[in-house]
Amino acid sequence: MTDEPRLTAAMTEIADRLEETLVALLPRGCGPEARVFQAMAYATLDGGKRLRPFLTVETARLFGVPDSRSLRAGAAIEFVHCYSLVHDDLPAMDDDDLRRGRPSNHVEFDEATAILAGDALQTLAFEVLADPATHPDGAVRAGLVAALADAAGARGMVGGQMFDIAAETAGGGLTLEQIVRLQRMKTGRLFDVSCQSGALLGGASESDRAALAAYTQALGLAFQIADDILDETGDAVEVGKQVGKDARAGKATFISILGLEAARERANILALQAVTALECFGERAGLLRDAAQFAVGRRT
Amino acid sequence: MTDEPRLTAAMTEIADRLEETLVALLPRGCGPEARVFQAMAYATLDGGKRLRPFLTVETARLFGVPDSRSLRAGAAIEFVHCYSLVHDDLPAMDDDDLRRGRPSNHVEFDEATAILAGDALQTLAFEVLADPATHPDGAVRAGLVAALADAAGARGMVGGQMFDIAAETAGGGLTLEQIVRLQRMKTGRLFDVSCQSGALLGGASESDRAALAAYTQALGLAFQIADDILDETGDAVEVGKQVGKDARAGKATFISILGLEAARERANILALQAVTALECFGERAGLLRDAAQFAVGRRT
Repeated sequence: MTDEPRLTAAMTEIADRLEETLVALLPRGCGPEARVFQAMAYATLDGGKRLRPFLTVETARLFGVPDSRSLRAGAAIEFVHCYSLVHDDLPAMDDDDLRRGRPSNHVEFDEATAILAGDALQTLAFEVLADPATHPDGAVRAGLVAALADAAGARGMVGGQMFDIAAETAGGGLTLEQIVRLQRMKTGRLFDVSCQSGALLGGASESDRAALAAYTQALGLAFQIADDILDETGDAVEVGKQVGKDARAGKATFISILGLEAARERANILALQAVTALECFGERAGLLRDAAQFAVGRRT
Repeated sequence: MTDEPRLTAAMTEIADRLEETLVALLPRGCGPEARVFQAMAYATLDGGKRLRPFLTVETARLFGVPDSRSLRAGAAIEFVHCYSLVHDDLPAMDDDDLRRGRPSNHVEFDEATAILAGDALQTLAFEVLADPATHPDGAVRAGLVAALADAAGARGMVGGQMFDIAAETAGGGLTLEQIVRLQRMKTGRLFDVSCQSGALLGGASESDRAALAAYTQALGLAFQIADDILDETGDAVEVGKQVGKDARAGKATFISILGLEAARERANILALQAVTALECFGERAGLLRDAAQFAVGRRT
C-alpha cells in the first residue's frame, strides 16, 4: 500500500531543498545579459513536482550519499528537463503558450531569449556536475556528465523529440512498439539517469544499478501513460498546461492505441513492476516504491 | 615573420584529421530520429577554418599530449561553436539564410530540426569530453567539461549573444569598452577555452596557462575586429555568409566606433601582443604565433 502522506511530505521536503539549490546555482548579475539569467530562473523556479531530483536524492540515500551531493546532481537533471520544456514550447516546436499554469518562456520573454535560456540551462547542468562540490572523485563527476549527456542527447531525449515531430509530420500511425520506443527516448531516459546518478554518486554495484534500471524503465512508461490519460481527461487549469492537444492533433498515444481503460490497466501493471524491481533494497526503498504508485495516480 | 605556407599546411592537416574525428563522433542511424543526426552532420562537416580545434591541438602539442586526445577536445569545442552558429542563424535570432556559402541549417532542414540539432550538438560536446578516450584521468575530463561549460554558458558565449541582442534592441550606442566585453563573452571565451583545453590535457603550469590566456585574449579580439572588417569590406561569396549586415542594422562594431583604419591598426597591435605572449614557449609555439597573424590577415 502507498503511504501517501509520507510520500507527499518527502517530495515536498526534497522539492523545497532543491529549490534552494537551484537558486544558488542559477547565474545572477545586472549587465545587459541579465535578461537570459531571468529567463533561466523563470524556466526553473517554482515549478513542477521535481520528480526527477526526488528520484536522484532518494536513490542516493540508498547508498548513504549526502544530500548536498545528490541535490546538485538532481538540480543538473532538472536544468536539462526545464531546458527541454522551454525549447519544446517554442512556436517552431510544439507551440505551447502555457506551462505550469503560467505563460511559456517565449511568451513571457521572447523567442530569442527562450532559445538562449534553454541553451544556457543545458550548459549549466554539465557545469554543475563537473564541479568538485558534486563529488570529490573526478571519475565520478565525469561519469555523471557522460550518463546525463547520453540520456539527453541525440540518441536519448532530443532524438525522442525529433522522433515525435517526425511521427506527427508523417500523420500518426505509430505501433505500440514504436510509441514505447519514442517514450523511452523522449522521457524515459531522463528518469533512468535520475536514479542512475544517485547510484553513481554512491558507487552502487552492477546488480543494484540493474534493479534501478528496471524500476525506472517501468516507472517512465507508467508516467507517460498517466500523462496521456491526463491529456485526455484532465482539466487545463489543474494540469497547468493545455490538454486534449494530442487527441485534436490526431496524434498516436497510448490511449489512441490501447483505449482508456486498457491504458489505465497497463499503467497500474507497470507501477507494480516498478515496485517489484526494488525488492532487493527492502524497506529503505519505500519512498521510491510509493513514487511509482504516485506516478500513475497523479492528477497533475 | 609569418611563414604562411607552413601555417596553411598545418591548419589543413589538423582540419582534415578533425573532420575524421567529427565523423567518428557524430551519431549515425536510420530510425525516425535520424533527421536530427543529418542536421548535426550538416552543421559540422565540411565547414570553416577549424581555428578553435587548431588552437587546442597546437597548444596540446606544446605539452606533449597525443593528438588523439586533443582532437577529441577540439571536436567538442567545434561542436559547441557549430551549435551556436545554428541557433544564432534562426529566424528568431540573427535570421541568416546563408552560412559557409550554403543554406543555413533551418533553411536546409526546418526550424524545429535546427533547434534540436543545436541542442544535441551541445550535449555531444560534453559527452565527448567526459569519455575516458579523451583523457584517462577523470579529474582532467571533469576539468575540461567545467572549462567548456563556463566559457559557453550564460556568463560566456550565450550571455554574449544575449548582450548582443539586448544592445541591438536598445539601438546600438555601445562604448568601446562595452564592445570589448561583448566580444570577449560572445567569441573570446571560446578561443580561450580552446587553448586552455590543450593546456589542461597536458597538465600545464599556472604560468604557462596565464601566457596562453594572454595570447587568446589578444587573438580573440583581433579575430573579432577582422570579422567586422570583413563584414564591412568583404564579398558575400568569398566570405560565405551575408556581409554588410551590421552596418545596415546600424549596429555598433569596432569599425563604427574606431573607423576602418584605426580598427585595422588595433587588430595588428593585438596580433603582435598575441605573438609576444607566447615568447616563453620559444620556437615550439611558432604555428600559434603564425595563427595570430593569420587571424587578422584572413579574407574569409
